[in-house]
Amino acid sequence: MSVIYNRVAYIGLGLIASSMIHASRRAGLQREVAGFARSAETRAIARDDNLCDFVAETAAEAVRDADLVVLCVPVGAMSEVAAEIGPHLKPGCTVSDVGSVKRAVIEGVMPHLPEGVHFIPAHPLAGTEHSGPRSGFAELFENRYTLIVPDGAPDPEAFAKLEQFWTYMGAHVELMDPEHHDLVLMVTSHAPHLIAYTMVGVADDLRRVTDSEVIKYSAAGFRDFTRIAASDPTMWRDVFLNNREATMEILGRFIEELMRLQRAIRKGDGDLLFDYFTRTRAIRRSIIEAGQDTAAPDFGRSHGTAGEGQTQADS
Amino acid sequence: MSVIYNRVAYIGLGLIASSMIHASRRAGLQREVAGFARSAETRAIARDDNLCDFVAETAAEAVRDADLVVLCVPVGAMSEVAAEIGPHLKPGCTVSDVGSVKRAVIEGVMPHLPEGVHFIPAHPLAGTEHSGPRSGFAELFENRYTLIVPDGAPDPEAFAKLEQFWTYMGAHVELMDPEHHDLVLMVTSHAPHLIAYTMVGVADDLRRVTDSEVIKYSAAGFRDFTRIAASDPTMWRDVFLNNREATMEILGRFIEELMRLQRAIRKGDGDLLFDYFTRTRAIRRSIIEAGQDTAAPDFGRSHGTAGEGQTQADS
Repeated sequence: MSVIYNRVAYIGLGLIASSMIHASRRAGLQREVAGFARSAETRAIARDDNLCDFVAETAAEAVRDADLVVLCVPVGAMSEVAAEIGPHLKPGCTVSDVGSVKRAVIEGVMPHLPEGVHFIPAHPLAGTEHSGPRSGFAELFENRYTLIVPDGAPDPEAFAKLEQFWTYMGAHVELMDPEHHDLVLMVTSHAPHLIAYTMVGVADDLRRVTDSEVIKYSAAGFRDFTRIAASDPTMWRDVFLNNREATMEILGRFIEELMRLQRAIRKGDGDLLFDYFTRTRAIRRSIIEAGQDTAAPDFGRSHGTAGEGQTQADS
Repeated sequence: MSVIYNRVAYIGLGLIASSMIHASRRAGLQREVAGFARSAETRAIARDDNLCDFVAETAAEAVRDADLVVLCVPVGAMSEVAAEIGPHLKPGCTVSDVGSVKRAVIEGVMPHLPEGVHFIPAHPLAGTEHSGPRSGFAELFENRYTLIVPDGAPDPEAFAKLEQFWTYMGAHVELMDPEHHDLVLMVTSHAPHLIAYTMVGVADDLRRVTDSEVIKYSAAGFRDFTRIAASDPTMWRDVFLNNREATMEILGRFIEELMRLQRAIRKGDGDLLFDYFTRTRAIRRSIIEAGQDTAAPDFGRSHGTAGEGQTQADS
């Protein structure tokens, strides 16, 4: 037990917030957990499950006396929530978030926070394709990265506490600047998600293959796309709308590359294809060497081992 | 023990052939296993491991007296192998294959087979991202589909034996006609693989994000693409070159869809994105209901449970 904050308030009680609550309680990182969710149903579930010590009826009420406030709402709702809680924040408290894009969140939240409140954005690279207050579990952040993405130099003490908070929840904490964060995540997460969504959409449209066939034979590769494409629609809509330039750029690059391979296939240029596929295979090897995945073939899904699930907050 | 064939010959000794050998031996489906691989190194490994009862120095030698000959070479090499073994096949034997495209294989192999030999193409929808004679294991086909894809009505007795052979190896056997097979697999496997290859290639090209960053944060979604994109380059080159029309069509559809989403993002059309992502999420649910995946979040990779790995023969 090493209490870091007396009271922590979570705004939004989905997969990430509920996982943070389970993880931080297990490590005894806060004395009291307050929570708020916009949906009355979610609040009722949180009360039934004793997810929080105190479930508030408004965000303003939830943040009262909180030493740490974590915004766990979709990126597009951050600004509105910040405006609502701003006047009610405890002087000197820390406000953080778990949003998947950072520049847009900083611009949306900062203006609403009073002097003396420390805003230190963060982004845990962890998640599953499930959502809601009952989808969380204490192990979600173990051996996963949590990026702390401040706009300029954060208050050293406030930063140290937040870093400690995430470290005790099992995460590897790293610092990154907002612009670079948004680009790195676009490449490693946002673009793959958009492309998976598109692939699933195309198959769904393709009429000469029945849906049942697509589903039945999905294990042949397509299934992994559907898992990625099962992520929370609201969250992803907001990610793409709030990281527009990077999305536009990488989509342009992607379409360009795809047309290059398409041309090679049409022309029967086997050498280009072989070289291309050989290069991508080498990247896979480096990922295994970097310890971000195992060389074990991907058989089935084992529940509860070190979280490597993409989607949701993996964004 | 229920011996179906006296002697089975495997041409090509990679992941699928070695898995078939382990699975069929475990079930005692043949008395003798003959094998041939073009690479001397592979033949040496097969001998060291006693993968086969007899490792031949030529394909012609391997098929002598075989009651079943299984072509386990890349699709682009099938025709050449068929030409080589044709004159040496035992009258009345069955020739099958495990190729990922069927129309091209049928056209490449059929002309080289003598009267009285039964050619019954097949395609096991099972595989991992690994290759070679030591990558196989007896469980690979358990609870996976193996499609038997004859060109017209096959000889009833020869068909029944091959169906039984695959069933005893643990597969669910289904019949499909070649054209439909090539379309279904394009949607469920070939296109997802090509798109994963492209995504990995794009990230590799993107210079402002270091390779090490891409690799380090790959668990955020990108990693699953790299696993798909780690499949055997030769095999995939041949798949795309031999299923060209279907590839061209679905790539066109895919680029069209992607540009539609791109436009929606540029215009800030959140409703279109939300609706699109909601629809794809529903497809995911139907796949879980169809028993082709579990609802368990995708954490890590457990080795040895029911094979659901995409890539290689999953094509």
